[in-house]
Amino acid sequence: MRIVVLGAGAGGGFPQWNCACPNCARARAGDRAARKRTQTSLAVSADGMAWLLLNAAPDLREQISATPLLQPLAPDTQGSLRASPIRAVALSGGDVDAIAGLLHLRESQPLAVYASRRVLTLLAANSIFRVLNPACVSYREILLDRAEPLSDFAGRPLGLTIEAFAVPGKVPLYAEEEGEVKLGTTEGDTVGFTVSDEAGASFHFVPACAALSEALHARLRDSQLVFFDGTLWTDDEMIRLGLGTKTGRRMGHLSVSGDDGTLAGLAPLRIARKVFVHVNNSNPMILEDSPERAIVTRKGWEVAYDGMEIAL
Amino acid sequence: MRIVVLGAGAGGGFPQWNCACPNCARARAGDRAARKRTQTSLAVSADGMAWLLLNAAPDLREQISATPLLQPLAPDTQGSLRASPIRAVALSGGDVDAIAGLLHLRESQPLAVYASRRVLTLLAANSIFRVLNPACVSYREILLDRAEPLSDFAGRPLGLTIEAFAVPGKVPLYAEEEGEVKLGTTEGDTVGFTVSDEAGASFHFVPACAALSEALHARLRDSQLVFFDGTLWTDDEMIRLGLGTKTGRRMGHLSVSGDDGTLAGLAPLRIARKVFVHVNNSNPMILEDSPERAIVTRKGWEVAYDGMEIAL
Repeated sequence: MRIVVLGAGAGGGFPQWNCACPNCARARAGDRAARKRTQTSLAVSADGMAWLLLNAAPDLREQISATPLLQPLAPDTQGSLRASPIRAVALSGGDVDAIAGLLHLRESQPLAVYASRRVLTLLAANSIFRVLNPACVSYREILLDRAEPLSDFAGRPLGLTIEAFAVPGKVPLYAEEEGEVKLGTTEGDTVGFTVSDEAGASFHFVPACAALSEALHARLRDSQLVFFDGTLWTDDEMIRLGLGTKTGRRMGHLSVSGDDGTLAGLAPLRIARKVFVHVNNSNPMILEDSPERAIVTRKGWEVAYDGMEIAL
Repeated sequence: MRIVVLGAGAGGGFPQWNCACPNCARARAGDRAARKRTQTSLAVSADGMAWLLLNAAPDLREQISATPLLQPLAPDTQGSLRASPIRAVALSGGDVDAIAGLLHLRESQPLAVYASRRVLTLLAANSIFRVLNPACVSYREILLDRAEPLSDFAGRPLGLTIEAFAVPGKVPLYAEEEGEVKLGTTEGDTVGFTVSDEAGASFHFVPACAALSEALHARLRDSQLVFFDGTLWTDDEMIRLGLGTKTGRRMGHLSVSGDDGTLAGLAPLRIARKVFVHVNNSNPMILEDSPERAIVTRKGWEVAYDGMEIAL
């Protein structure tokens, strides 16, 4: 199984378009220790030919442009010039940074979109997503805690299995006060994914997580590879830096540091490889020369970057 | 007045994410005569400090990243670290390639969004756009044929005036078959903009146009600068190249060539500077070494490219 990190940043990316904080200024200046990051999305393939996306970041066009593996190099087997190797997308939630990239995937390309019922309802309630031609895009519901073989629009298997599991989360920002779709934390609207191939390779993808739970511990224990929510270092970071008015918990993100944070919480689980994704511009560990980066490295974690490749 | 072309491509950009046509292959290979283009959006400023965007392309985050003028270089005058020099956006239609970039402009940045009533209704009907915090984003209706001074969220003037005018067009693709908002061609849902500064500089922006009309001729005659729809070279181009099933007219775009095309139609109007924008990957004039490019150049037209700057 091949995995490519298309983007490793949190909502807004790094640098964020409107942010004048010191971290964003360093990234903008091309500082090598403050590497730019687009918003979090992964590409996964069993055969290196047909690809699954985990989340569709708003930067997806730019991400495809930076990733030759995802570009159409020749007409497809039917002779069509619309020939992307991207065959399916699985969405772990309804936030803009997870779904807006679907709007890049228009132009009559056969595609399978996998998501929870709640996220599918949200897509259906927003007519702009109808720009994906229903004649060639198939929306498929993912049920929780059930391993499901993935296939492309035409039903050809991708050689990958996905299983969604509930993660403590929150409703998307834009759906917080609306009546049309009530997304909650108990129905599995924020999910994690376990992706496996037929050779026994397997990893977990949890880009948003508001709290650790017994069920999550059990799911992640002894696993080969976990991509986990690395949004914030501390819960009050956005407020303290003058960047926002909300705590991490209010935004649906557990902190990396602290007694009840991710580093401490996942430490006993004997995970072979631990990689932070969805890293916010405000999180000091995004800087390769920061003391916080030294701490996560010492604790056996990696911080994902755009273009990072992992073979399992 | 300063104008920066942030993107000059049509929907999907150049190369298009899923297209294996020879033009896209050349762009992907880095061929200098097949320059890459993101989707069409312009930035305009009277003072070089506060900027107006004309349309918000899905590539807007990448476009800002490529344009230092649009980056926040220091905290704003109130000391806020959310300090983008982008103060306002005007939308000429509801198509994905004109509006999806609004989703990049989240993160609590004060902003004024100008659009026709129909486009505002479409934004309101799609809950995903609520991600722009209503506490700092002001939606303002533009009426047709009425010059309106532009101001930022706080009401500070930008030193620019905008006037919208009706252009023969079509409904956005995703709204073609829906009931919620009936966008038509007669109510001015596809508009062009005339932007003027206080020193008498003025230009027109018409990124989508399905046909020329007497009213349009009158509007464009004797003008200093026109940015015009350069989507397709011939009406059946997409079909002939095996890239689609629709004619240009069906997609709301007049062709560049032909007796009833743009080159012929605008020739008598004595426009000082004529620039094609919204150029599709299928249009041979996108290639700098094509006979079609030679024709448009000989007829006094330029083909816009990302990063093109014009001072008026």
